[in-house]
Amino acid sequence: MPTQKPGSEFDIIARHFKPLANGHAGALGLNDDAAVLDVPDGQQLVVTTDALVEGVHFLSSLSPQDIAHKVVGVNLSDLAAMGATPHAVFLAAQFPATVTEDWIASFAHGLGEALTESGAALLGGDTVSTPGPMAFTLTAHGFASKSQVLTRAGAQVGDRVFVSGTIGDGALGLLVLTGKLDGDDFLGCRYARPEPRWRLGQLLGQSGLVSACADVSDGLVADAGHIAEASQCDVELDATLVPLSAAARRQLKAHPDLLGTVLTGGDDYELVFTADAHHAVAIQDIADQAGVTVTAIGEVVEGTGRVRVQGPGGQVMDLGAGGYRHL
Amino acid sequence: MPTQKPGSEFDIIARHFKPLANGHAGALGLNDDAAVLDVPDGQQLVVTTDALVEGVHFLSSLSPQDIAHKVVGVNLSDLAAMGATPHAVFLAAQFPATVTEDWIASFAHGLGEALTESGAALLGGDTVSTPGPMAFTLTAHGFASKSQVLTRAGAQVGDRVFVSGTIGDGALGLLVLTGKLDGDDFLGCRYARPEPRWRLGQLLGQSGLVSACADVSDGLVADAGHIAEASQCDVELDATLVPLSAAARRQLKAHPDLLGTVLTGGDDYELVFTADAHHAVAIQDIADQAGVTVTAIGEVVEGTGRVRVQGPGGQVMDLGAGGYRHL
Repeated sequence: MPTQKPGSEFDIIARHFKPLANGHAGALGLNDDAAVLDVPDGQQLVVTTDALVEGVHFLSSLSPQDIAHKVVGVNLSDLAAMGATPHAVFLAAQFPATVTEDWIASFAHGLGEALTESGAALLGGDTVSTPGPMAFTLTAHGFASKSQVLTRAGAQVGDRVFVSGTIGDGALGLLVLTGKLDGDDFLGCRYARPEPRWRLGQLLGQSGLVSACADVSDGLVADAGHIAEASQCDVELDATLVPLSAAARRQLKAHPDLLGTVLTGGDDYELVFTADAHHAVAIQDIADQAGVTVTAIGEVVEGTGRVRVQGPGGQVMDLGAGGYRHL
Repeated sequence: MPTQKPGSEFDIIARHFKPLANGHAGALGLNDDAAVLDVPDGQQLVVTTDALVEGVHFLSSLSPQDIAHKVVGVNLSDLAAMGATPHAVFLAAQFPATVTEDWIASFAHGLGEALTESGAALLGGDTVSTPGPMAFTLTAHGFASKSQVLTRAGAQVGDRVFVSGTIGDGALGLLVLTGKLDGDDFLGCRYARPEPRWRLGQLLGQSGLVSACADVSDGLVADAGHIAEASQCDVELDATLVPLSAAARRQLKAHPDLLGTVLTGGDDYELVFTADAHHAVAIQDIADQAGVTVTAIGEVVEGTGRVRVQGPGGQVMDLGAGGYRHL
C-alpha cells in the first residue's frame, strides 16, 4: 500500500465522505455547519452515541473496512434495541498523522457498505487529527412511533427471556484474532463485523409484544442485568438453552471452561428481550420474518435487578463480576 | 487535589452526568441504549458534531470547567450559524486512565453551566477509556422551522457582510495562554470560554433577512470564504472595519504584525453573515435584542468563492493560506 499523505480535512471530506451523503438533501452536501433533518409526523427520534478507540474497542489489526462495519454495527445495534429504524449517522473521526489516504478510502468504503444495508446515510461529522490512537464516535439517528419504542424497563414477573442469533461468537472471535485460541474465520468475522438486528428490533417494536429489550454488547449476563435492573426484577437464565454457533460449540467441547466467556464476553450485538410466554409463537413468526433465529433462554422472576445463570449441571454459576469488560 | 480513582463507566455516568439529564424524559435517565426525542410539529432538527482532542483543539492547561465550556460552545456555535435553538447534546468522552474523579466532577459541573445558559440538556452519550489524550465528541441538536434555517449558500452580489462581537480575541488568547504574548485574562478567557451566539442566530433565522451565515471557528477569512464558496461569489472585507476588543486593539498597537492572526486565527465563535444593505437597521435592532454588537465589515461581489481583505493602507492583504489551523 503506497504511503500517501492525506490532504486537508476539507479535501478528505470531499473525496471520501461526501459520496456517502449523496441524494440526502438534509446533509447540505456536508458543506454546512450542521445537517437538517425532517422527522416524519407521528415519529419520535431515537439517538445513540458510541465511541470506539483503537486498542480498547477494536483491534489495530482489523482492516479499515472491518473497523467501519464495527463502528456502524455497534451503534445500529443500540437503535435495534429500541425498536427504531436507522435513518442517519454522524461520524467524528480522529486520525493520527500516520494514517494514509488509502486507509481512509477503504474505511469510507466499509462505512458505505455497512450503511447501505441498513438504509441509513452519513449526514455529517467531523474529521480531526490526534497524537493518540485512532478513534471514531458515531451518533446514530433512528425513527420509531411512540408505541413502538422498546426500553430496558418493563419486564414483568413470569415473562420469558429471549435472545436472537447465537451468543459468545464475538468474545471467542476476539480470542481467535488475538492468537489466544485456535479457531476458524467464522468467529473472527463475527467479532469484526457485527450484524446489528435492527430489522428484528423494528418488527418487535411494531408488534407490541415485547416488554423490555437491550442489545448484547456488554455480555449476555450484563445486558440481561440491565433489563433486570431497569425493570426491578430478577432474571434466571439456563446456560444449556443459550444458542451457540457450530464454531462456538466446537470450542466449548474442547475448552468447557470457556462457558463463562461465552455468557459474559460481549460484542455479540444480538438482542435480549422479554415477553409474555403466550407470545412465543408470534415471536417466532417475527424472527422468521427478520431472517434471524430467536431462542427462549430463561424467565423473569421477582427480585431487585440480579441475574442468575443455571449451569449445565443444574448449579447456579459463579460468573464473577459477570459483565462488562473491554479487550 | 486528592487522586481518586474513578469507578466503572456506569458509576461515573450515574454520579456526574445523570443529574444533567434531570427532568428530561427522553433521556430515559441515561439508563437505556438510546435517547428518545420528540420534534415539535413544523420544526426541523438541526444536528452538528464536533470532536475536540487535548493538545490539538484545546490546551491541556485549561481547567476542566473551561474545557467543558469550550466543548459545548464550539457545538452550539454551529447551531447558531444555522439559526437553530439548542435542545439537546450527546457527549462521547474519552478519558485516559490517569483522570481523577474530581476532574470528571469539575468537567460535569462546567458542562452543566454551559448547557443551562442555552437551555439544552445532556440526553445521552458514552464514556470510554483511551491510552491516548483526552477527547470529547459532542453532538448537538437544535430545532428550527424550515423557513428559519440559515445556510452558507445564498449570499447575493451587493449584500453587505456582517460579523458579531469582536474578532481575533480567540487567536490572541491562545498566544497569551501559551506564553507567546503578554496579555490580560480577558483574551485567555475568550479563547477558553467561547460564548456561542445562538440567541443572535435564532433571531436572525426568524427575521428572514439573512442570505447566508457561518460561525467564525476556522478564522474570519476562512469562514467568510465558506460563504463565498457555497454561494458562488466573492467577499471583500475591509480590515479597518473588523470589530476589535479593547484588549485586541492594545495588542495590535504593540504588535501591528498580529493583524493577520486576528483575521485568520479562528476560535472566535462569532457569526459572520450576509444580508441586503437595506436591512442594516433591522439587523442592528436584532443585535440589540440579542445583546451583542453587529458590525458591517464588507460586501459580496461577483466571483467564484474567494475572499479579499483590504488592509489599513488600502492594499489587498496577503494572508497566505488564510484560514484553517489548529494550535
